[in-house]
Amino acid sequence: MEEMRIKRVLDALNDIGVSQMLVIDPMSIYYLTDVMVYPGERFFGLLLKSNGNHVFFINKLFKVPDDLTIKQVWYDDTDSVMDMVAKEMDSEEVLGVDKDLKARFLLPLMEKHAANGFVNTSLAVDLTRGIKDLDEQEKMREASRINDQAMEMFKTLIHEGVSEKEVSEKMLKIYLDLGADGFSFEPIVSFGSNAADPHHMPDDTILKAGDCVLFDVGCVKAGYCSDMTRTFYYKYISDESRSIYNTVRAANEAAEVLVKPGVKLCDLDFAARNVITEAGYGPNFTHRLGHFIGLDEHEYGDVSAVSTWIAQEGMIFSVEPGIYLTDNTGVRIEDLVLVTKDGCEVLNHFSKEIEIIE
Amino acid sequence: MEEMRIKRVLDALNDIGVSQMLVIDPMSIYYLTDVMVYPGERFFGLLLKSNGNHVFFINKLFKVPDDLTIKQVWYDDTDSVMDMVAKEMDSEEVLGVDKDLKARFLLPLMEKHAANGFVNTSLAVDLTRGIKDLDEQEKMREASRINDQAMEMFKTLIHEGVSEKEVSEKMLKIYLDLGADGFSFEPIVSFGSNAADPHHMPDDTILKAGDCVLFDVGCVKAGYCSDMTRTFYYKYISDESRSIYNTVRAANEAAEVLVKPGVKLCDLDFAARNVITEAGYGPNFTHRLGHFIGLDEHEYGDVSAVSTWIAQEGMIFSVEPGIYLTDNTGVRIEDLVLVTKDGCEVLNHFSKEIEIIE
Repeated sequence: MEEMRIKRVLDALNDIGVSQMLVIDPMSIYYLTDVMVYPGERFFGLLLKSNGNHVFFINKLFKVPDDLTIKQVWYDDTDSVMDMVAKEMDSEEVLGVDKDLKARFLLPLMEKHAANGFVNTSLAVDLTRGIKDLDEQEKMREASRINDQAMEMFKTLIHEGVSEKEVSEKMLKIYLDLGADGFSFEPIVSFGSNAADPHHMPDDTILKAGDCVLFDVGCVKAGYCSDMTRTFYYKYISDESRSIYNTVRAANEAAEVLVKPGVKLCDLDFAARNVITEAGYGPNFTHRLGHFIGLDEHEYGDVSAVSTWIAQEGMIFSVEPGIYLTDNTGVRIEDLVLVTKDGCEVLNHFSKEIEIIE
Repeated sequence: MEEMRIKRVLDALNDIGVSQMLVIDPMSIYYLTDVMVYPGERFFGLLLKSNGNHVFFINKLFKVPDDLTIKQVWYDDTDSVMDMVAKEMDSEEVLGVDKDLKARFLLPLMEKHAANGFVNTSLAVDLTRGIKDLDEQEKMREASRINDQAMEMFKTLIHEGVSEKEVSEKMLKIYLDLGADGFSFEPIVSFGSNAADPHHMPDDTILKAGDCVLFDVGCVKAGYCSDMTRTFYYKYISDESRSIYNTVRAANEAAEVLVKPGVKLCDLDFAARNVITEAGYGPNFTHRLGHFIGLDEHEYGDVSAVSTWIAQEGMIFSVEPGIYLTDNTGVRIEDLVLVTKDGCEVLNHFSKEIEIIE
């Protein structure tokens, strides 16, 4: 499986005439080799070569499986590691570099003339990762299934006098009890006007009647992430909130019905944004429609007005329009969708009907 | 305070003839401006200029204080942000770049010829951060004071039949009860042969009589980190373990007594390593002696055989020699030390006597 993934990356590199690439993102290296290392500030890299003679660069403090078949260059904290990396490269050829390669590693490679030019070729890896194979699709389904169940439980945490923090602090145990391995990101729990900040973090705000209750939550299961947003109301819903909610829901669904192989991702953003703009809330939808997701909660590739990507079978991304009214309220409705042969499978099955929690 | 810090960075840049620097590390930006943003994959930068006309680059999704006096360039997800960044730079001058600037931002700046050369000038920021001012020193003392207290509590978690994970899962609450804001890093709890891996993560291993019990733990308080390691024994200690323990302790103390302004950090590493080498365990001390610490648990600057830095008053770093015997045992003893006017203050006061937990 990993070999097939490396082949897909090499094919993509070949298409743009690049014969070597330095992969740095630990999650990409895990995806390509099944080797997981948390390098911290130390260098950890995988040099992919079109001739198949790949090289790992590994600090002696890192643990990797004994049966690793890829060539390894081991270094310790006193070695001049970028000299060792440069030595393994073909200095006559361009080097494809990971978008995440940091200046403190890239600038020395440039100074050493380790390659004949440096180009960001992360797309070769990211687009490969963006198209999930069947095993990954099944894991993504399972992570979202748990997320649907968790959302049911989270609703029951809402009661008179509770604070956002008190709610959020109970979430991890619920996920773990449902079989998840942990959060895919710190949960967002926003009451009332706090929901107007799409990235609000849970604080001591106490729930009030009429507040919206926004949960943007996800878990990890078997390495893969879920991510869903639902917005509820406490005790009652104002007419304005109802109208906003229905607009966001319509925007979410307007985009989801369009998802199929061949559609431009910017057109999905446009479809959702159009619904919101027509309703008069265009300036209040302040972010892109969605992002890719998989081993990481945010993977490269987005669904925005400037996304040039074309939907392909196996892609999984979020569809999450929102309307944010400063000092007032916010609504976001988010599903993950999997592009299928002729349409899409929405991985979240939690209802999008307006729900008032008593 | 923040203005004084920026001035120290600009002075350091001036010394190497650089008039503009792009700072990217969110913690460095926080340190220099008191503005904390978690940018995720989005661009967040601070362009420092020797003429004082600094510029922030901020995504419209980020929240910053309203009363920010530094010039701001706001962008959204559809903007070509690196064009906006390049426009603010002096293309006739060299640009100092943050060591953490990623290839996906650095390569476009190079292609646009945004500056007349690109140099890693992070040392100007990192050395400034490495020398703590009085306010920071007091916060570091407090975080280590809590860590000392916590270590007393952690010892009480050790009993017949307990697993590493069960111990580690109780640690967060202990820190919070003692007034800390959270972990500074995921705690390391290693029993017996697991301690032979310096980076072992707590698992289901059950404690056995004769095991060493290694705690490498730290908390955050008021933004600043603590970090301490102690190694205990359960029920009894073998002669070999006693000898190893005393060697590591002697190495720790051999380094600490040397700490004062003017000493080369590599000489501290040498002093500790020498004690361990003389005892016949040289190859079993597999890592550097220490690292810098402050707002981040690992800050730039290390105490290793290749460190060229000179100790200066106000520096705080760890002194953490270890001996690791694969499939057998491991010992590490770690303190944080603050370089004072004429020596050092050890921030950890927890005993280093051999302690056998019954």
